[in-house]
Amino acid sequence: METREIRLARRPHGEPVADDFELASRELGEPGEGELLVRNRFMSVDPYMRGRMNDVKSYVPPFELGKALQGGAVGEVVETGELVVHDRGWREHALVQADKVRPAPLPHGISPSALLGALGMPGMTAWVGVTDIAPVREGETVFISAAAGAVGSVAGQIAKARGCRVVGSAGGPAKAEYVRDVLGFDACFDYRAIEPREALREIARDGVDVYFDNVGGVQLEAAIGALNRGGRIALCGAVSQYNATEPAPGPRNLALLVGKRGTMRGFIVSDHADREGEFRGEVGGLIADGRLTLAETVVEGGLEAAPGAFIDMLRGKHLGKVVIAL
Amino acid sequence: METREIRLARRPHGEPVADDFELASRELGEPGEGELLVRNRFMSVDPYMRGRMNDVKSYVPPFELGKALQGGAVGEVVETGELVVHDRGWREHALVQADKVRPAPLPHGISPSALLGALGMPGMTAWVGVTDIAPVREGETVFISAAAGAVGSVAGQIAKARGCRVVGSAGGPAKAEYVRDVLGFDACFDYRAIEPREALREIARDGVDVYFDNVGGVQLEAAIGALNRGGRIALCGAVSQYNATEPAPGPRNLALLVGKRGTMRGFIVSDHADREGEFRGEVGGLIADGRLTLAETVVEGGLEAAPGAFIDMLRGKHLGKVVIAL
Repeated sequence: METREIRLARRPHGEPVADDFELASRELGEPGEGELLVRNRFMSVDPYMRGRMNDVKSYVPPFELGKALQGGAVGEVVETGELVVHDRGWREHALVQADKVRPAPLPHGISPSALLGALGMPGMTAWVGVTDIAPVREGETVFISAAAGAVGSVAGQIAKARGCRVVGSAGGPAKAEYVRDVLGFDACFDYRAIEPREALREIARDGVDVYFDNVGGVQLEAAIGALNRGGRIALCGAVSQYNATEPAPGPRNLALLVGKRGTMRGFIVSDHADREGEFRGEVGGLIADGRLTLAETVVEGGLEAAPGAFIDMLRGKHLGKVVIAL
Repeated sequence: METREIRLARRPHGEPVADDFELASRELGEPGEGELLVRNRFMSVDPYMRGRMNDVKSYVPPFELGKALQGGAVGEVVETGELVVHDRGWREHALVQADKVRPAPLPHGISPSALLGALGMPGMTAWVGVTDIAPVREGETVFISAAAGAVGSVAGQIAKARGCRVVGSAGGPAKAEYVRDVLGFDACFDYRAIEPREALREIARDGVDVYFDNVGGVQLEAAIGALNRGGRIALCGAVSQYNATEPAPGPRNLALLVGKRGTMRGFIVSDHADREGEFRGEVGGLIADGRLTLAETVVEGGLEAAPGAFIDMLRGKHLGKVVIAL
């Protein structure tokens, strides 16, 4: 059968542009031994994919030029209709090894797209961050950057459900309002309108006990400055730097971590697969109880809309987890 | 009785100079209820004291202008001749609360000055760092900056005794040689002669598992670059920045900690007083067995030599722990 996929046409320099991607058709053979033919229904665009577009060694290998991109997707097994999660996104149909797909248990009435967001990799990243990497405790103040994003929106709502005071930052007044009014954070500032350092002085007067860092840069510096004794910082990503062509200056106040007895810890969610059951239990429960709002932008327009959605996501144009409906 | 002390005459701006200090005489009354009169025999100068000379809130309160400085000292209780460790250094005699002095058990044949170095606060800082903050494991590569210093010299020798490969850095060829030949590190580079990043590429080809940071700055950046997956960094101090009048740029590669799953943790030894017994057991044993060399510079010349020794220590002029013989 004939199917379509998005390929990496060239490696982006700085911010990706449309011409870095190519929509192509290909012939898909019959499923081989142990393979499943899957028709994708939703595919994910995630910030970490920008890193894989560079030709550098990292914790995942770079994407290959001229080949289809990869990423999380939810699809139906054509033969059985069963819904599965797998990593052959950026294409309409995929042949996937049966042992590489994960079944997709969904709370009643929730869209399968949540399996790429709050109930998928971004949600589990959030959960691992506030549970194992920078554990949050009842009554503590937790600061979360990119709070309107796929990971931050979930991290903040989990911390809130655990009895923390949760403050966030987001790009632009509409997102900040969304984080406060819809996601229920105690406060949220627009980092484009106010210096993060100043904002934290106002909305986290008693300091910050945990910072969930999704952006790096000046917000990380501000969080170190506001950190309380024994504070913890989970380093989840540095979206402010993914498109950078020059190394960004680091926080000038890092030495404060000595006197503050601060801990800063980087992590990758795939190391923590053994925690999936507990994650599903807590976050699935919060969703079922209506205590966790799914922050999600579903982009219509099929596969051809994916490169634009990816570029827009890196620019911070969307709210919450960005998925493409195929 | 009449005694002499060193006072803070004014707050240093940048590097301290002699005029920031004042040698003064004062009348010392009789010991009150619960007080001991102690004649100091050795006093300590430590890098952290530079921070206390600034008028800023930190983990210890700033020194007061016109008042005697404070710091670790070993002295004899005049009445009993007992050797005690206490925190009223920078003076010839001190009245000390009896419950504020610590007895000073010494392995046979070791100078009491060791109670301010390998068997004192710097040694315990080293031990806590490689034991609790950034635990070193047999077979790992451990990088230690300021390796010829009071803390670094002990940290490296403990790691070596535990079966690690230990590499260091020091300022100048003589110190680097001392670290290799006398302290027994596997390698040591002179950070003034070779770029730390380049040096680590040569002497730590398989990367760095643990970095014990005493300096911050470019060496911290180099260590992050060389860090292996799951690597740990103990932030102990940033002597390269103690005299800084402007904030120093942070490591530009901090975001690497995400993919490397790196941990960076600041600490202050006084939080870990419950570990003193275990520290004394291990480090005292290594000293008694001749497996840990005491890196120490004893400055003669009495109290008046202390300000100069402190200034020289911050400039990196001395080897090992700097103590003043009174």
